[in-house]
Amino acid sequence: MVAHMNAEALRSTIASGEAWYFSRSRNALWRKGETSGQTQRVVEMRVDCDQDAVWIRVEQVGAACHTARRSCFYRKVNPGAGGDAELSFVEAERLFDPKTVYRK
Amino acid sequence: MVAHMNAEALRSTIASGEAWYFSRSRNALWRKGETSGQTQRVVEMRVDCDQDAVWIRVEQVGAACHTARRSCFYRKVNPGAGGDAELSFVEAERLFDPKTVYRK
Repeated sequence: MVAHMNAEALRSTIASGEAWYFSRSRNALWRKGETSGQTQRVVEMRVDCDQDAVWIRVEQVGAACHTARRSCFYRKVNPGAGGDAELSFVEAERLFDPKTVYRK
Repeated sequence: MVAHMNAEALRSTIASGEAWYFSRSRNALWRKGETSGQTQRVVEMRVDCDQDAVWIRVEQVGAACHTARRSCFYRKVNPGAGGDAELSFVEAERLFDPKTVYRK
């Protein structure tokens, strides 16, 4: 998954060892899984060369994706003729019914 | 590495099988490695659930990072006391002298 962290989310993640993010649409700090139960324990955290991106390897409870897939990257881009592309599903099994976990 | 793609960069990447990005600071489309030689051949491309992030697995010629490291994520964040953190180098070998490849 890809999500935004602000300074507070980064601090909370480092201090707690659980992944925290900042929702720009809801303008709110957010602990991953706090309502869904799909938490992430940080196993390793790295920063990139210009220190504006953070990569974390996590122990994922259940699914990272709100569609109930383990990863948000469950569709492959297949190049087609003339620069077109088609998507196909890969590792796209749902681990639960997302309606039972995500309500909005 | 993490970099920005606009629609044209995405189209060029799909059509050519080489990674293209869009530099927001230079306001220019950019084929990875076009001046440095450190090109990326696309092995697999995926999109995320809300289709605003692209993940590509590449065959990297040399180093992805402008610091001459294979990856931009060559520093680990180690949690310290009281919410502080320290960085340590991991997989941080330089594959060449970056001054010989990147001039600006």
